[in-house]
Amino acid sequence: MSESLSMYQASVPVLQRALRNLREILRKGQTHAQSQGYDPAVLLQSRLYPDMLPLLRQVQIATDTAKFAPARLAGVESMRFDDTETGFDELYARLDRTIEYLGSFSAEQIDGSETREVLLPTRSRGDLRFDGRGYLFGFVLPNLYFHVSTAYAILRSNGVPLGKSDYLGGN
Amino acid sequence: MSESLSMYQASVPVLQRALRNLREILRKGQTHAQSQGYDPAVLLQSRLYPDMLPLLRQVQIATDTAKFAPARLAGVESMRFDDTETGFDELYARLDRTIEYLGSFSAEQIDGSETREVLLPTRSRGDLRFDGRGYLFGFVLPNLYFHVSTAYAILRSNGVPLGKSDYLGGN
Repeated sequence: MSESLSMYQASVPVLQRALRNLREILRKGQTHAQSQGYDPAVLLQSRLYPDMLPLLRQVQIATDTAKFAPARLAGVESMRFDDTETGFDELYARLDRTIEYLGSFSAEQIDGSETREVLLPTRSRGDLRFDGRGYLFGFVLPNLYFHVSTAYAILRSNGVPLGKSDYLGGN
Repeated sequence: MSESLSMYQASVPVLQRALRNLREILRKGQTHAQSQGYDPAVLLQSRLYPDMLPLLRQVQIATDTAKFAPARLAGVESMRFDDTETGFDELYARLDRTIEYLGSFSAEQIDGSETREVLLPTRSRGDLRFDGRGYLFGFVLPNLYFHVSTAYAILRSNGVPLGKSDYLGGN
């Protein structure tokens, strides 16, 4: 039996990496738009379907999902965003701020949260009750990857040249 | 400090749940097509963009990603699929078989694989070398959610009524 897995290892660096990849995917979208001679902001309002959310909201929700995770696992109040971003530079700043915020948590704050109670307020279904493990694996990770994958799909469906390695990213 | 997190908990039940949700998402697509009076198989060849993979392949890759995970973590040969599916019923059977296969692994086989070496053969980049934790969190989970999210997006972009709760699913 080697060293074990910790809630910190399964959350903070995993979330940071997904957000760094999202940042790079966005950057490739912006660069592609510029090379094609159209306003990159057009991409931020692009959707896969009329009643799905546009790219800008996908990025906002991805960062929200990520920032809430360590805060809820640690049992502290999360930082807040005003959701006022309209352009790429503001979204990069939001991603950077979230990645930095995640890095402000210590392993000691997150480890041991497997069975800690997490209350998740929702608009439509009241408070959802999880333990830390169920919250991380049943909500945070699938949600985060959903929004990063959807951002990727929106850009791909607009002709931005991206591959799976942009999504999986480095370390 | 409560009970700790294990590699088994972070893999087998998590992967099974994502596949069960994918199965239900597919079923809603099939039902929708039937209610609209077109051949559901049309959906299986639908793509988000010409050089992205169609729904049928998204399901095949999701199940491949999931089935390899416990096998590689446990250091055993994985079962194989012949990739001959053409319709919904065959995809359900493939999903069911994968879910059952995942369930055949014991916690004892998977736990302790955090630092076990995993070699991942790739067509374009030779063998990728991971430890078990890096393989699970840097490859398996993001990949699986990518393909489930893309399957969801393909169905949504064809007008299938799905919501986030279909993607996140139950337990």
